[in-house]
Amino acid sequence: MPKVEVVERILSANDQIAAQNRARLDAAGVVAINIMASPGAGKTSLILQTIAALRDRLRLGVIEGDVASRTDADRVAATGVPVVQINTGGQCHLDAPMVSRALDTLPLADLDVLLIENVGNLICPSGFQLGQRWDVVVSSVPEGHDKPLKYPGIFTEADVVVINKVDLQPYLDYDEAVFRQAVRALNAAAPILALSCKTGAGVAAWADWVVAAVEKGRGV
Amino acid sequence: MPKVEVVERILSANDQIAAQNRARLDAAGVVAINIMASPGAGKTSLILQTIAALRDRLRLGVIEGDVASRTDADRVAATGVPVVQINTGGQCHLDAPMVSRALDTLPLADLDVLLIENVGNLICPSGFQLGQRWDVVVSSVPEGHDKPLKYPGIFTEADVVVINKVDLQPYLDYDEAVFRQAVRALNAAAPILALSCKTGAGVAAWADWVVAAVEKGRGV
Repeated sequence: MPKVEVVERILSANDQIAAQNRARLDAAGVVAINIMASPGAGKTSLILQTIAALRDRLRLGVIEGDVASRTDADRVAATGVPVVQINTGGQCHLDAPMVSRALDTLPLADLDVLLIENVGNLICPSGFQLGQRWDVVVSSVPEGHDKPLKYPGIFTEADVVVINKVDLQPYLDYDEAVFRQAVRALNAAAPILALSCKTGAGVAAWADWVVAAVEKGRGV
Repeated sequence: MPKVEVVERILSANDQIAAQNRARLDAAGVVAINIMASPGAGKTSLILQTIAALRDRLRLGVIEGDVASRTDADRVAATGVPVVQINTGGQCHLDAPMVSRALDTLPLADLDVLLIENVGNLICPSGFQLGQRWDVVVSSVPEGHDKPLKYPGIFTEADVVVINKVDLQPYLDYDEAVFRQAVRALNAAAPILALSCKTGAGVAAWADWVVAAVEKGRGV
Protein backbone atom coordinates (compact mmCIF):
# COMPACT_ATOMS: atom_id res chain seq x y z
CA MET A 1 0.00 0.00 0.00
CA PRO A 2 1.38 3.43 -0.82
CA LYS A 3 2.51 5.43 2.16
CA VAL A 4 0.27 8.37 2.98
CA GLU A 5 2.13 11.54 3.82
CA VAL A 6 0.65 13.45 6.75
CA VAL A 7 1.31 17.16 6.99
CA GLU A 8 1.42 17.94 10.66
CA ARG A 9 0.12 21.16 12.10
CA ILE A 10 2.89 23.73 11.98
CA LEU A 11 3.15 26.97 13.89
CA SER A 12 1.30 29.94 12.45
CA ALA A 13 3.41 32.78 11.12
CA ASN A 14 2.70 34.73 14.31
CA ASP A 15 3.65 31.82 16.55
CA GLN A 16 6.87 31.21 14.61
CA ILE A 17 7.96 34.78 15.27
CA ALA A 18 6.76 34.48 18.89
CA ALA A 19 9.04 31.45 19.29
CA GLN A 20 11.93 33.49 17.87
CA ASN A 21 11.15 36.30 20.33
CA ARG A 22 11.10 33.81 23.17
CA ALA A 23 14.45 32.29 22.14
CA ARG A 24 15.96 35.75 21.94
CA LEU A 25 14.62 36.68 25.38
CA ASP A 26 15.76 33.36 26.88
CA ALA A 27 19.24 33.84 25.45
CA ALA A 28 19.42 37.26 27.09
CA GLY A 29 18.04 35.94 30.38
CA VAL A 30 14.93 38.14 30.12
CA VAL A 31 11.54 36.87 31.33
CA ALA A 32 8.60 38.49 29.54
CA ILE A 33 5.21 39.00 31.21
CA ASN A 34 2.17 39.78 29.03
CA ILE A 35 -0.35 41.99 30.86
CA MET A 36 -3.90 41.90 29.49
CA ALA A 37 -7.04 43.73 30.66
CA SER A 38 -10.04 45.82 29.64
CA PRO A 39 -9.44 49.48 28.76
CA GLY A 40 -8.85 51.42 31.96
CA ALA A 41 -8.41 48.44 34.29
CA GLY A 42 -5.06 49.80 35.45
CA LYS A 43 -2.41 48.01 33.37
CA THR A 44 -0.11 51.03 33.24
CA SER A 45 -0.67 51.78 36.92
CA LEU A 46 0.27 48.19 37.77
CA ILE A 47 3.46 48.55 35.71
CA LEU A 48 4.34 51.79 37.52
CA GLN A 49 3.73 50.13 40.91
CA THR A 50 5.86 47.16 39.83
CA ILE A 51 8.71 49.47 38.87
CA ALA A 52 8.47 51.29 42.20
CA ALA A 53 8.42 48.01 44.16
CA LEU A 54 11.14 46.13 42.28
CA ARG A 55 13.55 48.53 40.63
CA ASP A 56 16.17 47.89 43.31
CA ARG A 57 15.84 44.10 42.92
CA LEU A 58 15.28 43.58 39.18
CA ARG A 59 16.25 45.36 35.98
CA LEU A 60 12.95 46.15 34.30
CA GLY A 61 11.97 47.03 30.74
CA VAL A 62 8.53 47.83 29.35
CA ILE A 63 6.64 47.56 26.07
CA GLU A 64 3.46 49.65 25.92
CA GLY A 65 0.79 48.58 23.43
CA ASP A 66 -2.05 50.88 22.38
CA VAL A 67 -4.20 51.43 19.33
CA ALA A 68 -3.04 55.06 19.36
CA SER A 69 -1.23 57.62 21.56
CA ARG A 70 2.00 57.46 23.54
CA THR A 71 0.74 58.67 26.90
CA ASP A 72 1.40 55.34 28.66
CA ALA A 73 5.00 55.12 27.45
CA ASP A 74 5.59 58.71 28.56
CA ARG A 75 4.37 57.83 32.08
CA VAL A 76 6.75 54.86 32.20
CA ALA A 77 9.67 56.80 30.68
CA ALA A 78 9.40 59.31 33.51
CA THR A 79 10.64 56.54 35.86
CA GLY A 80 13.84 56.12 33.83
CA VAL A 81 13.03 52.51 32.88
CA PRO A 82 13.62 51.58 29.19
CA VAL A 83 10.27 51.61 27.37
CA VAL A 84 8.98 51.27 23.82
CA GLN A 85 5.51 52.33 22.68
CA ILE A 86 3.81 50.19 20.03
CA ASN A 87 0.84 51.79 18.28
CA THR A 88 -1.17 49.11 16.50
CA GLY A 89 -2.98 51.63 14.29
CA GLY A 90 -6.35 49.99 14.82
CA GLN A 91 -5.39 46.37 15.46
CA CYS A 92 -7.07 45.08 18.60
CA HIS A 93 -4.09 43.20 20.08
CA LEU A 94 -0.29 43.07 19.97
CA ASP A 95 1.30 40.45 17.73
CA ALA A 96 4.71 38.80 17.65
CA PRO A 97 6.14 40.85 14.74
CA MET A 98 5.33 44.09 16.60
CA VAL A 99 7.08 42.79 19.72
CA SER A 100 10.02 41.63 17.62
CA ARG A 101 10.55 45.16 16.33
CA ALA A 102 10.22 46.53 19.87
CA LEU A 103 12.87 44.08 21.11
CA ASP A 104 15.29 45.53 18.55
CA THR A 105 15.24 48.83 20.42
CA LEU A 106 15.45 47.55 24.01
CA PRO A 107 18.74 46.88 25.86
CA LEU A 108 17.97 43.20 26.44
CA ALA A 109 21.39 42.41 27.91
CA ASP A 110 20.65 44.88 30.70
CA LEU A 111 17.20 43.51 31.64
CA ASP A 112 15.84 40.78 33.90
CA VAL A 113 12.15 41.21 33.17
CA LEU A 114 10.12 42.70 30.34
CA LEU A 115 6.59 43.86 31.17
CA ILE A 116 4.43 43.93 28.03
CA GLU A 117 1.21 45.94 28.29
CA ASN A 118 -1.17 44.58 25.67
CA VAL A 119 -3.97 46.59 24.01
CA GLY A 120 -6.98 47.14 26.30
CA ASN A 121 -9.23 44.26 25.28
CA LEU A 122 -10.49 41.14 27.13
CA ILE A 123 -10.91 39.03 24.00
CA CYS A 124 -8.44 39.37 21.13
CA PRO A 125 -5.03 39.49 22.90
CA SER A 126 -5.37 35.98 24.33
CA GLY A 127 -5.17 34.43 20.86
CA PHE A 128 -1.73 35.77 19.97
CA GLN A 129 1.58 34.55 21.37
CA LEU A 130 4.22 37.25 21.69
CA GLY A 131 7.20 35.38 23.16
CA GLN A 132 6.06 35.86 26.77
CA ARG A 133 6.71 33.38 29.55
CA TRP A 134 3.69 34.42 31.65
CA ASP A 135 0.19 35.76 31.05
CA VAL A 136 -1.46 38.14 33.52
CA VAL A 137 -5.10 39.25 33.43
CA VAL A 138 -6.02 42.39 35.37
CA SER A 139 -9.71 42.84 36.19
CA SER A 140 -10.78 45.94 38.10
CA VAL A 141 -13.53 46.11 40.70
CA PRO A 142 -15.68 48.69 38.81
CA GLU A 143 -15.94 46.29 35.85
CA GLY A 144 -18.01 43.93 38.00
CA HIS A 145 -17.56 40.42 39.35
CA ASP A 146 -19.14 38.75 36.30
CA LYS A 147 -16.25 39.31 33.88
CA PRO A 148 -14.92 35.70 33.98
CA LEU A 149 -18.37 34.44 32.95
CA LYS A 150 -18.48 36.77 29.98
CA TYR A 151 -14.86 36.55 28.81
CA PRO A 152 -13.87 33.00 29.76
CA GLY A 153 -11.04 32.52 27.26
CA ILE A 154 -8.62 35.05 28.69
CA PHE A 155 -9.21 33.96 32.30
CA THR A 156 -8.74 30.30 31.37
CA GLU A 157 -5.25 30.96 29.98
CA ALA A 158 -4.03 33.30 32.73
CA ASP A 159 -1.04 32.36 34.92
CA VAL A 160 -2.14 34.93 37.49
CA VAL A 161 -5.27 37.09 37.88
CA VAL A 162 -5.01 40.54 39.49
CA ILE A 163 -8.05 42.28 40.97
CA ASN A 164 -7.28 46.01 40.83
CA LYS A 165 -9.00 49.06 42.37
CA VAL A 166 -10.07 47.31 45.58
CA ASP A 167 -10.15 50.79 47.15
CA LEU A 168 -13.42 51.36 45.23
CA GLN A 169 -15.11 48.27 46.68
CA PRO A 170 -17.05 50.24 49.38
CA TYR A 171 -18.81 52.24 46.64
CA LEU A 172 -19.76 49.33 44.38
CA ASP A 173 -21.91 46.19 44.35
CA TYR A 174 -18.92 43.93 43.77
CA ASP A 175 -18.69 40.49 45.38
CA GLU A 176 -15.05 39.38 45.35
CA ALA A 177 -16.00 35.84 46.39
CA VAL A 178 -18.22 35.51 43.31
CA PHE A 179 -15.37 36.74 41.10
CA ARG A 180 -12.90 34.30 42.66
CA GLN A 181 -15.31 31.40 42.28
CA ALA A 182 -15.89 32.26 38.61
CA VAL A 183 -12.14 32.37 37.92
CA ARG A 184 -11.60 29.10 39.76
CA ALA A 185 -14.29 27.37 37.69
CA LEU A 186 -12.21 28.19 34.58
CA ASN A 187 -8.69 28.01 35.95
CA ALA A 188 -7.68 25.68 38.78
CA ALA A 189 -4.17 27.00 39.35
CA ALA A 190 -3.78 30.74 38.80
CA PRO A 191 -3.23 32.78 41.96
CA ILE A 192 -5.77 35.60 42.38
CA LEU A 193 -4.19 38.71 43.89
CA ALA A 194 -6.35 41.63 45.07
CA LEU A 195 -4.68 45.03 45.23
CA SER A 196 -5.02 48.76 44.70
CA CYS A 197 -2.54 50.56 42.49
CA LYS A 198 -3.89 53.78 43.99
CA THR A 199 -3.26 53.01 47.69
CA GLY A 200 -0.55 50.40 47.21
CA ALA A 201 -2.47 47.81 49.24
CA GLY A 202 -1.65 44.29 48.07
CA VAL A 203 1.16 45.41 45.74
CA ALA A 204 3.84 43.64 47.83
CA ALA A 205 2.24 40.23 47.18
CA TRP A 206 2.11 41.02 43.45
CA ALA A 207 5.78 42.05 43.50
CA ASP A 208 6.62 38.73 45.21
CA TRP A 209 4.75 36.91 42.42
CA VAL A 210 6.82 38.80 39.81
CA VAL A 211 10.11 37.94 41.52
CA ALA A 212 9.16 34.25 41.72
CA ALA A 213 7.95 34.32 38.10
CA VAL A 214 11.29 35.73 36.93
CA GLU A 215 13.22 33.07 38.89
CA LYS A 216 11.01 30.27 37.59
CA GLY A 217 11.12 31.70 34.06
CA ARG A 218 14.90 31.50 34.14
CA GLY A 219 14.89 28.01 35.58
CA VAL A 220 16.62 29.29 38.74
CA MET B 1 -9.71 52.79 -27.46
CA PRO B 2 -11.39 49.88 -25.74
CA LYS B 3 -13.55 50.78 -22.82
CA VAL B 4 -12.09 49.77 -19.48
CA GLU B 5 -14.58 48.20 -17.10
CA VAL B 6 -14.26 49.44 -13.56
CA VAL B 7 -15.56 47.23 -10.80
CA GLU B 8 -16.82 49.58 -8.14
CA ARG B 9 -16.50 48.84 -4.47
CA ILE B 10 -19.48 46.83 -3.42
CA LEU B 11 -20.77 46.19 0.05
CA SER B 12 -19.03 43.48 2.06
CA ALA B 13 -21.06 40.40 2.89
CA ASN B 14 -21.57 41.76 6.40
CA ASP B 15 -22.71 45.16 5.16
CA GLN B 16 -25.13 43.59 2.66
CA ILE B 17 -26.83 41.72 5.48
CA ALA B 18 -26.70 44.85 7.65
CA ALA B 19 -28.55 46.72 4.88
CA GLN B 20 -31.18 43.96 4.81
CA ASN B 21 -31.54 44.21 8.61
CA ARG B 22 -31.97 47.95 8.31
CA ALA B 23 -34.62 47.63 5.60
CA ARG B 24 -36.49 45.12 7.73
CA LEU B 25 -36.34 47.38 10.79
CA ASP B 26 -37.38 50.43 8.73
CA ALA B 27 -40.35 48.55 7.30
CA ALA B 28 -41.45 47.66 10.83
CA GLY B 29 -40.91 51.21 12.07
CA VAL B 30 -38.20 50.09 14.51
CA VAL B 31 -35.15 52.29 15.20
CA ALA B 32 -32.07 50.31 16.29
CA ILE B 33 -29.42 51.75 18.60
CA ASN B 34 -26.02 50.02 18.84
CA ILE B 35 -24.48 50.42 22.30
CA MET B 36 -20.69 49.92 22.47
CA ALA B 37 -18.31 50.12 25.45
CA SER B 38 -15.48 48.47 27.35
CA PRO B 39 -16.30 45.43 29.49
CA GLY B 40 -18.06 46.59 32.64
CA ALA B 41 -18.73 50.18 31.54
CA GLY B 42 -22.44 49.75 32.27
CA LYS B 43 -24.11 48.90 28.95
CA THR B 44 -26.67 46.58 30.54
CA SER B 45 -27.29 49.03 33.38
CA LEU B 46 -27.93 51.77 30.81
CA ILE B 47 -30.40 49.51 29.01
CA LEU B 48 -32.20 48.77 32.29
CA GLN B 49 -32.37 52.50 33.10
CA THR B 50 -33.66 53.22 29.58
CA ILE B 51 -36.41 50.64 30.01
CA ALA B 52 -37.41 52.10 33.38
CA ALA B 53 -37.46 55.65 31.99
CA LEU B 54 -39.22 55.00 28.69
CA ARG B 55 -41.38 51.89 28.91
CA ASP B 56 -44.53 54.00 29.19
CA ARG B 57 -43.57 56.11 26.14
CA LEU B 58 -41.91 53.63 23.76
CA ARG B 59 -42.16 49.92 23.04
CA LEU B 60 -38.65 48.59 23.62
CA GLY B 61 -36.82 45.46 22.55
CA VAL B 62 -33.27 44.37 23.39
CA ILE B 63 -30.49 42.27 21.85
CA GLU B 64 -27.74 41.32 24.29
CA GLY B 65 -24.34 40.45 22.81
CA ASP B 66 -21.68 38.61 24.79
CA VAL B 67 -18.83 36.21 24.09
CA ALA B 68 -20.46 33.82 26.57
CA SER B 69 -23.16 33.65 29.30
CA ARG B 70 -26.79 34.82 29.38
CA THR B 71 -26.72 36.83 32.58
CA ASP B 72 -27.38 40.14 30.82
CA ALA B 73 -30.40 38.83 28.92
CA ASP B 74 -31.78 37.38 32.15
CA ARG B 75 -31.52 40.81 33.82
CA VAL B 76 -33.40 42.42 30.92
CA ALA B 77 -35.99 39.62 30.71
CA ALA B 78 -36.92 40.29 34.34
CA THR B 79 -38.37 43.64 33.18
CA GLY B 80 -40.77 41.90 30.77
CA VAL B 81 -39.22 43.54 27.69
CA PRO B 82 -38.58 41.20 24.71
CA VAL B 83 -34.90 40.24 24.66
CA VAL B 84 -32.59 37.90 22.75
CA GLN B 85 -29.12 36.86 23.91
CA ILE B 86 -26.45 36.40 21.24
CA ASN B 87 -23.34 34.47 22.33
CA THR B 88 -20.57 35.06 19.84
CA GLY B 89 -18.57 32.04 21.04
CA GLY B 90 -15.29 33.94 21.05
CA GLN B 91 -15.88 36.56 18.35
CA CYS B 92 -15.01 40.01 19.63
CA HIS B 93 -18.01 41.90 18.16
CA LEU B 94 -21.54 41.35 16.89
CA ASP B 95 -22.03 41.05 13.17
CA ALA B 96 -25.00 41.51 10.85
CA PRO B 97 -25.80 37.80 10.36
CA MET B 98 -26.03 37.33 14.16
CA VAL B 99 -28.40 40.30 14.42
CA SER B 100 -30.44 38.99 11.48
CA ARG B 101 -31.06 35.72 13.32
CA ALA B 102 -31.96 37.63 16.48
CA LEU B 103 -34.48 39.74 14.54
CA ASP B 104 -36.25 36.51 13.51
CA THR B 105 -37.20 35.91 17.13
CA LEU B 106 -38.25 39.45 18.13
CA PRO B 107 -41.81 40.82 17.73
CA LEU B 108 -40.73 43.69 15.43
CA ALA B 109 -44.29 44.80 14.69
CA ASP B 110 -44.73 45.53 18.39
CA LEU B 111 -41.54 47.58 18.86
CA ASP B 112 -40.52 51.22 18.43
CA VAL B 113 -36.87 50.91 19.42
CA LEU B 114 -34.33 48.09 19.54
CA LEU B 115 -31.40 48.50 21.91
CA ILE B 116 -28.45 46.35 20.80
CA GLU B 117 -25.76 45.76 23.42
CA ASN B 118 -22.56 44.93 21.57
CA VAL B 119 -19.72 42.80 22.98
CA GLY B 120 -17.60 44.64 25.57
CA ASN B 121 -14.76 45.98 23.42
CA LEU B 122 -13.67 49.50 22.44
CA ILE B 123 -12.07 48.48 19.15
CA CYS B 124 -13.64 45.71 17.06
CA PRO B 125 -17.38 46.50 17.19
CA SER B 126 -16.98 49.83 15.39
CA GLY B 127 -15.96 48.12 12.15
CA PHE B 128 -19.16 46.10 11.68
CA GLN B 129 -22.52 47.46 10.60
CA LEU B 130 -25.50 45.64 12.11
CA GLY B 131 -28.47 47.54 10.65
CA GLN B 132 -28.49 50.16 13.40
CA ARG B 133 -29.56 53.77 12.89
CA TRP B 134 -27.46 55.15 15.74
CA ASP B 135 -24.16 54.36 17.46
CA VAL B 136 -23.65 55.01 21.18
CA VAL B 137 -20.33 54.77 23.02
CA VAL B 138 -20.46 54.44 26.81
CA SER B 139 -17.26 55.32 28.69
CA SER B 140 -17.24 55.00 32.48
CA VAL B 141 -15.41 57.29 34.89
CA PRO B 142 -13.18 54.53 36.41
CA GLU B 143 -11.74 53.80 32.95
CA GLY B 144 -10.07 57.21 32.95
CA HIS B 145 -10.38 60.37 30.89
CA ASP B 146 -7.79 59.27 28.32
CA LYS B 147 -9.90 56.66 26.54
CA PRO B 148 -10.69 58.78 23.43
CA LEU B 149 -6.94 59.27 22.85
CA LYS B 150 -6.30 55.54 23.00
CA TYR B 151 -9.37 54.26 21.12
CA PRO B 152 -10.09 57.07 18.64
CA GLY B 153 -11.98 55.04 16.04
CA ILE B 154 -15.04 54.23 18.10
CA PHE B 155 -15.37 57.76 19.49
CA THR B 156 -15.03 59.26 16.01
CA GLU B 157 -18.02 57.31 14.71
CA ALA B 158 -20.31 57.79 17.73
CA ASP B 159 -23.63 59.63 17.41
CA VAL B 160 -23.69 60.16 21.16
CA VAL B 161 -21.16 59.58 23.94
CA VAL B 162 -22.35 58.62 27.44
CA ILE B 163 -20.13 59.11 30.50
CA ASN B 164 -21.35 56.56 33.06
CA LYS B 165 -20.59 56.09 36.80
CA VAL B 166 -20.26 59.81 37.59
CA ASP B 167 -21.13 58.85 41.19
CA LEU B 168 -17.55 57.50 41.47
CA GLN B 169 -15.93 60.79 40.42
CA PRO B 170 -15.15 61.88 44.02
CA TYR B 171 -12.96 58.81 44.50
CA LEU B 172 -11.00 59.00 41.25
CA ASP B 173 -8.53 61.23 39.44
CA TYR B 174 -10.87 61.77 36.50
CA ASP B 175 -11.06 65.11 34.69
CA GLU B 176 -14.36 65.27 32.78
CA ALA B 177 -13.25 68.41 30.92
CA VAL B 178 -10.21 66.57 29.54
CA PHE B 179 -12.44 63.70 28.42
CA ARG B 180 -14.90 66.07 26.72
CA GLN B 181 -12.10 67.93 24.96
CA ALA B 182 -10.61 64.64 23.70
CA VAL B 183 -13.98 63.50 22.33
CA ARG B 184 -14.57 66.89 20.69
CA ALA B 185 -11.19 66.74 18.95
CA LEU B 186 -12.37 63.55 17.21
CA ASN B 187 -16.08 64.22 16.84
CA ALA B 188 -17.50 67.69 16.38
CA ALA B 189 -21.18 66.82 16.70
CA ALA B 190 -21.90 64.02 19.16
CA PRO B 191 -23.64 65.11 22.37
CA ILE B 192 -21.74 64.03 25.51
CA LEU B 193 -24.12 63.04 28.30
CA ALA B 194 -22.83 62.44 31.85
CA LEU B 195 -24.93 60.18 34.06
CA SER B 196 -24.98 57.52 36.74
CA CYS B 197 -26.95 54.35 36.15
CA LYS B 198 -26.57 53.67 39.88
CA THR B 199 -28.10 56.90 41.21
CA GLY B 200 -30.17 57.79 38.14
CA ALA B 201 -28.56 61.24 37.86
CA GLY B 202 -28.53 62.41 34.25
CA VAL B 203 -30.66 59.52 32.98
CA ALA B 204 -33.53 61.85 32.03
CA ALA B 205 -31.36 63.70 29.49
CA TRP B 206 -30.27 60.36 28.01
CA ALA B 207 -33.93 59.26 27.78
CA ASP B 208 -34.73 62.50 25.95
CA TRP B 209 -31.91 61.74 23.51
CA VAL B 210 -33.38 58.28 22.87
CA VAL B 211 -36.88 59.67 22.24
CA ALA B 212 -35.49 62.25 19.79
CA ALA B 213 -33.33 59.60 18.12
CA VAL B 214 -36.36 57.36 17.58
CA GLU B 215 -38.36 60.24 16.10
CA LYS B 216 -35.51 61.29 13.83
CA GLY B 217 -34.79 57.67 12.89
CA ARG B 218 -38.37 57.31 11.70
CA GLY B 219 -38.28 60.59 9.85
CA VAL B 220 -41.02 61.98 12.12
